[in-house]
Amino acid sequence: MDDEQMPATISDVPTPSFLVDLDKVKKNAQKMTDTCERLGVQLRPHMKTHKTVELGTLMTNGTNRTIEVSTLDEAEFYAKNGFDDILYAHPLIAARTERCKNLAYKLESFHVMIENSHGLDVLLKSPLTDGKKWSVFLEVDDGSGRTGVPWDSDDVISLATMASQTPYIDFKGLYLYNGNTYKANCKEEIEDANKKGTDLLKNLYKRLTDNKIECRTLAIGNTPSCSRPHESMNVLTEFHPGNYIFYDVQQSTIGSCSRDEIACRLTTRVIGHKPSHNIFLIDCGFLALSYDGMADNPDDFSSFQDNPDLKIIGFSQEIGKVTTKSGEKLNYDRYPIGSQLFISPWHSCATACQHTVFYVHSGNKIVDMWRPTKGW
Amino acid sequence: MDDEQMPATISDVPTPSFLVDLDKVKKNAQKMTDTCERLGVQLRPHMKTHKTVELGTLMTNGTNRTIEVSTLDEAEFYAKNGFDDILYAHPLIAARTERCKNLAYKLESFHVMIENSHGLDVLLKSPLTDGKKWSVFLEVDDGSGRTGVPWDSDDVISLATMASQTPYIDFKGLYLYNGNTYKANCKEEIEDANKKGTDLLKNLYKRLTDNKIECRTLAIGNTPSCSRPHESMNVLTEFHPGNYIFYDVQQSTIGSCSRDEIACRLTTRVIGHKPSHNIFLIDCGFLALSYDGMADNPDDFSSFQDNPDLKIIGFSQEIGKVTTKSGEKLNYDRYPIGSQLFISPWHSCATACQHTVFYVHSGNKIVDMWRPTKGW
Repeated sequence: MDDEQMPATISDVPTPSFLVDLDKVKKNAQKMTDTCERLGVQLRPHMKTHKTVELGTLMTNGTNRTIEVSTLDEAEFYAKNGFDDILYAHPLIAARTERCKNLAYKLESFHVMIENSHGLDVLLKSPLTDGKKWSVFLEVDDGSGRTGVPWDSDDVISLATMASQTPYIDFKGLYLYNGNTYKANCKEEIEDANKKGTDLLKNLYKRLTDNKIECRTLAIGNTPSCSRPHESMNVLTEFHPGNYIFYDVQQSTIGSCSRDEIACRLTTRVIGHKPSHNIFLIDCGFLALSYDGMADNPDDFSSFQDNPDLKIIGFSQEIGKVTTKSGEKLNYDRYPIGSQLFISPWHSCATACQHTVFYVHSGNKIVDMWRPTKGW
Repeated sequence: MDDEQMPATISDVPTPSFLVDLDKVKKNAQKMTDTCERLGVQLRPHMKTHKTVELGTLMTNGTNRTIEVSTLDEAEFYAKNGFDDILYAHPLIAARTERCKNLAYKLESFHVMIENSHGLDVLLKSPLTDGKKWSVFLEVDDGSGRTGVPWDSDDVISLATMASQTPYIDFKGLYLYNGNTYKANCKEEIEDANKKGTDLLKNLYKRLTDNKIECRTLAIGNTPSCSRPHESMNVLTEFHPGNYIFYDVQQSTIGSCSRDEIACRLTTRVIGHKPSHNIFLIDCGFLALSYDGMADNPDDFSSFQDNPDLKIIGFSQEIGKVTTKSGEKLNYDRYPIGSQLFISPWHSCATACQHTVFYVHSGNKIVDMWRPTKGW
């Protein structure tokens, strides 16, 4: 919608819309800042969840420094908006060399991530000039088969050795995503996964120093890890969480946050009643909410505020079909056509990325409209 | 990516990207135009699949008239770009009255769709002035529980009666989505579903005329219906297909198109090898392809060009995990890191909507970049 005036209240926003609770995102940001200060680690928040200037500023405590991004579009967007010390946290490939070079020259501090010899070769073949060096994180994989060089392989040492011995590369150190935290069912299981991830990084640090490789950074990623840290993580140097600014139902399910800390919602309206099928229709299709979580968590991927027995059972592009989890007959009087409902997303990153504007509210009052960057 | 220069060839586009084959979309547009001319029905193409000015012009054969949209954002976007005779094909609710009024006054011809008494009440409470009337389609449901008033209910007659007897409403007629075509397994089954849908509309037409209700429009929707029409459909007056401009693997699976008619692709690059898990990684996550089709069609939802044994088995926001359908070991020499791959999407509407730019090519040469509208 072009030239949109700011709606007065939550009841006035067009539907479907993505709502951000300003007071809650402020709290979530402050809590993560406090956690990092207590443990003595640098917070490098990930921007991929929201992709807005405003939350970048909030998550960096007003400094606009030391952030992580998942795409070059994000890196260029934040660079253009005055941010610096940006880590492009995606395995480097040759096709992206020129855009990375431009960022390295433009910014005081731009970092890339590699996880294989292709990424290292890209840097070896494209040295920076004017006294600039490529600043490099090496991503390690704990065995889960995500990105990263296998932590227990010889490749970790050979890649780190080559990177640290190349004069025009500044080898920063290691990053571990620590994805096992997502298998947790409670806070304590996240902490256990964190202890294991931290031990893995300590072990690798020893291997690097035994091989005379200087490693200044030990970074750990993801929101559960950084939201429920194990005390041993004070030996690490950087935390890279992103989703914590909004949290979501998935995070609350694994014990990463409380339901009350979820700071975003999707708002939608009832557009039709289908008693023959015991469903009603809403103006929230797959485009507004995303399919994320539907297949694996059919009962939880669409949590309706104040209506815990509702769930979405089908989608078209702009329409969702809602029924009861219990199988009980819907009481249609509770959901008149035109009435407004609120959904807590299963995965806020996936839902937020579907929207070109976030309606920011304090209480019921809309106080701002934020526009994320899009694309690659 | 801001201020992007047009890449020279398909090999030069950033990845992940959405590619549109200009020669194929021209053929698809012409074929649908020919089909409608042959049957003597008006084509009202749906814009929701692509949301671009350029394909709107192509699908309307240069007239920029007689289109259908799924959101008010699309309606406003096309109105601003000189299109007219626009049908907003989504159940009308009160919260959207003002934007619909603005469109009705701005355009020569703007139509809304209703499927229940709430929608009719909206119009009754908000008459247009200056000689304008609300132009109204009534959507009917064939029993599948999608949008639409149940076709065999008394509500069809009562809604049509009230609409046609209100002086400031211009009752156009009926629209049927005809979703049973999506249950087909071949061209012939689509034609059968079309015969049934057409019979339903003919039956309803008789009921309306028996009740002295003038019904000037009998419209049928969706791409399979209009791509594989039954000859009896020449009694209808409008076809509302959208997806046919791109088609996709889902359409080819049900017999709506041939694989060769699919006119869009997602291009991605290999970013890592994980032989321990028999996967490789690509820079196409759920954000670039969408999850659509993954749960129900795990082997077909990501069709790799020239690599029929490959499939995506997992996603994060910006990364996909690829393995073999057969379970055979991957030959990593075929997929070097940095190499480019092409995926035919399961559902092109879902994939296209994830992109802010379409790279348009003729042969391997990039000839244009189109920017769709976004939002609601």
